[in-house]
Amino acid sequence: MTQRMTRWKAFVVIGVAIAMLAAGRLQAQLPDPGLEVDRQRTAVVIIDPQNDFLSPEGVTWGLVGKSVTANGTVENIEILMKTAKTEGLPVFISPHYYYPTDDGWKFGGAVETMMHGIGMFSRQGALTTEGFEGSGADWLERYKPVIEDGQTVVTSPHKVYGPETNDLVLQLRKRGVDKVILGGMSANLCVESHLRGLLEQGFEVAVVKDATAAAQVPGLDGYAAALTNYRFLASTILTTEQAAKLMADAPESTD
Amino acid sequence: MTQRMTRWKAFVVIGVAIAMLAAGRLQAQLPDPGLEVDRQRTAVVIIDPQNDFLSPEGVTWGLVGKSVTANGTVENIEILMKTAKTEGLPVFISPHYYYPTDDGWKFGGAVETMMHGIGMFSRQGALTTEGFEGSGADWLERYKPVIEDGQTVVTSPHKVYGPETNDLVLQLRKRGVDKVILGGMSANLCVESHLRGLLEQGFEVAVVKDATAAAQVPGLDGYAAALTNYRFLASTILTTEQAAKLMADAPESTD
Amino acid sequence: MTQRMTRWKAFVVIGVAIAMLAAGRLQAQLPDPGLEVDRQRTAVVIIDPQNDFLSPEGVTWGLVGKSVTANGTVENIEILMKTAKTEGLPVFISPHYYYPTDDGWKFGGAVETMMHGIGMFSRQGALTTEGFEGSGADWLERYKPVIEDGQTVVTSPHKVYGPETNDLVLQLRKRGVDKVILGGMSANLCVESHLRGLLEQGFEVAVVKDATAAAQVPGLDGYAAALTNYRFLASTILTTEQAAKLMADAPESTD
Amino acid sequence: MTQRMTRWKAFVVIGVAIAMLAAGRLQAQLPDPGLEVDRQRTAVVIIDPQNDFLSPEGVTWGLVGKSVTANGTVENIEILMKTAKTEGLPVFISPHYYYPTDDGWKFGGAVETMMHGIGMFSRQGALTTEGFEGSGADWLERYKPVIEDGQTVVTSPHKVYGPETNDLVLQLRKRGVDKVILGGMSANLCVESHLRGLLEQGFEVAVVKDATAAAQVPGLDGYAAALTNYRFLASTILTTEQAAKLMADAPESTD
Repeated sequence: MTQRMTRWKAFVVIGVAIAMLAAGRLQAQLPDPGLEVDRQRTAVVIIDPQNDFLSPEGVTWGLVGKSVTANGTVENIEILMKTAKTEGLPVFISPHYYYPTDDGWKFGGAVETMMHGIGMFSRQGALTTEGFEGSGADWLERYKPVIEDGQTVVTSPHKVYGPETNDLVLQLRKRGVDKVILGGMSANLCVESHLRGLLEQGFEVAVVKDATAAAQVPGLDGYAAALTNYRFLASTILTTEQAAKLMADAPESTD
Repeated sequence: MTQRMTRWKAFVVIGVAIAMLAAGRLQAQLPDPGLEVDRQRTAVVIIDPQNDFLSPEGVTWGLVGKSVTANGTVENIEILMKTAKTEGLPVFISPHYYYPTDDGWKFGGAVETMMHGIGMFSRQGALTTEGFEGSGADWLERYKPVIEDGQTVVTSPHKVYGPETNDLVLQLRKRGVDKVILGGMSANLCVESHLRGLLEQGFEVAVVKDATAAAQVPGLDGYAAALTNYRFLASTILTTEQAAKLMADAPESTD
Repeated sequence: MTQRMTRWKAFVVIGVAIAMLAAGRLQAQLPDPGLEVDRQRTAVVIIDPQNDFLSPEGVTWGLVGKSVTANGTVENIEILMKTAKTEGLPVFISPHYYYPTDDGWKFGGAVETMMHGIGMFSRQGALTTEGFEGSGADWLERYKPVIEDGQTVVTSPHKVYGPETNDLVLQLRKRGVDKVILGGMSANLCVESHLRGLLEQGFEVAVVKDATAAAQVPGLDGYAAALTNYRFLASTILTTEQAAKLMADAPESTD
Repeated sequence: MTQRMTRWKAFVVIGVAIAMLAAGRLQAQLPDPGLEVDRQRTAVVIIDPQNDFLSPEGVTWGLVGKSVTANGTVENIEILMKTAKTEGLPVFISPHYYYPTDDGWKFGGAVETMMHGIGMFSRQGALTTEGFEGSGADWLERYKPVIEDGQTVVTSPHKVYGPETNDLVLQLRKRGVDKVILGGMSANLCVESHLRGLLEQGFEVAVVKDATAAAQVPGLDGYAAALTNYRFLASTILTTEQAAKLMADAPESTD
């Protein structure tokens, strides 16, 4: 009841906001619904925390390295995961792997084609770990203690960019999670596709803008594109510091 | 067999390209896989060709009008649809509607919240046409002859931004379509979510960059974000003129 | 915490049960997880409450009429919906419609082909109500007061059998619903596909076995098949009376 | 054009059939659309060819063993896969695995609860093969040469019963496959959910009734339920012998 009334009050505010929008002040006035963290229903979800994106040895470092360094992405992803653990929120990882049989794909978009061409996220098979340790598909070394703590949920790999081809949504739902704090790589590709995919499935999503990064080259700034789209799509945009504070300040559950 | 060999040759080319990418020449070198039009397997898909986006009377004209006008979006969508009809390719429309019961939604991202607030795409119910004619949710008047020709497939409404909540994918598959020429509104929201959603489902997608448009306000250029992401995601980016030529030049099917 | 402990105790019980299963006592011993009704998170979902299934004038009455009559399906669906309303639980309807353009589908399974052949659930278009009133696609007349009360959520039509092609999942999620009490038509086709589809999306589902019915002809008993599969798949199977009592006995929410 | 005409002729036949249906002769008269095998577009898909279902050592043998033996399921699955290889059709495997973190799931239906309780399909993690060899989650030993030939596509595990939580649909689409010959375990659970899931995605599916089996215990015959539902849902039902002949007789592709 109260929730509904608050909502209608929000709409009056929005009504005014819209009048301003028409005057070109969208940035300032676009609603920012925010995300209230409920420890029983909120998770940190990290996309592709793998060497091929985050290590200077990774195959895309020439494209994303500057953005990763500028944002402090490597450190911020770690802070997000560790804060979640400290505060009792579950952590989910959605990785990206390609197997030899995926070479049989007959078509793909631009970056898909590129990823296959450069052997990004390449593994020797779903049922072997041969050659995996330390490869571009493996976790960044510093993340291993937290990802391999026995509690972190590692989903099956997504195979294009979003959660449509893996079990992330089910894993979240099976634990009653419906709010997501989202980070990882890369900002305008897999992170944004996970954002969009989760919205279609009825999740509330806050994106952590400095716990991600993207390809930035002359004439094509993936990170700027992502930031623009996050502003339109997400419940809210946070810094890592803000996300950590939201988690720490969340009231203890009464369940 | 030939296909596979061609593919591997492509990979050598890509390998070289990647080396250049690392040097910052992504724009020039990112693969552009292209889209071969096969009349039996290709469709034109148009998102939200509705007054609230494309008419000066629509509720978002203050945000998108400049971009719609600059691109010639209204005319280009019409050209795409008419060319498809002339060339015998099917046309699919994925519209956006909200019903009174949707006011019961308890949360939403920024633009979702805005859309509900301004009554965008509002209809009085799924099973009534009361008040629909000429409303913001109705087709742009000039599109009606082609959309209502009895052949155009109008899907159920998408309810967030992408095809996950309607029957577009099924409608395409039930006709053997696996290649899509995509246009409509708006560029970085529903068009891009349809692009991403279709990629996850294994379609080849070319986006027509002047048959779309987006909100552009100081500090937040939805159209620029869309163009950047299309370049990464799609099989190729076309102008309306290029798309029309591709359709016209497609060989007759031998089936 | 308590929840987890209870769960492990359940597993010990199950362990014993399994030993018995191997001895052929599956029916008695297969776990019956049950469904606790929480008024804020539980909905009644009714599939295809339409004349073509439930009216003696409907096109499938010759196939399903005996089962509908034997189960009291028509009355039980009404009781379920009305009890939900009385108890403050939301009601969702997932209907089945075909439009003239759906005749362009190039293939379909056995019953799909039959449905198109007999004009089942036929409407003249998604954007017209011409000829709808009282047709096989329309609601059973006695359900109209409750379905058309302005609160019942009517989703877009499913186009095969399950919720994959409409917005049912989103509509439930946007209201925080994660438990479903399921009924409607027909038992082994659309109801069972909705059951399976909702399980894949992480819902808890109880099926109401006398608020459904199915085609029953010599050598092919759809209702028996459905009952068997419900027992394997669902959280629990209820009678309408049990479902009504569960709703009535649910504690008031403390939210 | 011809296709459409044939289709309408089929409908006249169906019209007559329906009149007979009303007279109770559904079994004989329900349309059987059939499946034409096109070598470029057809695949054999096998569900859960794993020890826990198919080996006398598996945890469910007490439930399914009699049905597996009666149908010759183990041999027939092998024949299907080998025939596909000989005839140049691709083979896809959709396995079922549970990892330790899946113990964190808070709810599940009856058989889901049972599976977790008995440690069915249990692996020590997605990124380890520790203890996998010869376990209940491993392939039946005799299938290994064909599944591990480097060509067979092994998808990510499905996590409930159907393909919604893995990449099977994408893997098929990325190779242009839109027709499926389906077998594996168990008939009324994962095989039927894959059948239903593939239908929702616009595939044509033939089920091979003796390349599957199910739990059969007094009062609960999963195999009978599956056969009934296949008849309603699938394009056609085949024996292994018929499926092998269809593949062998398929014309060489002209592509």
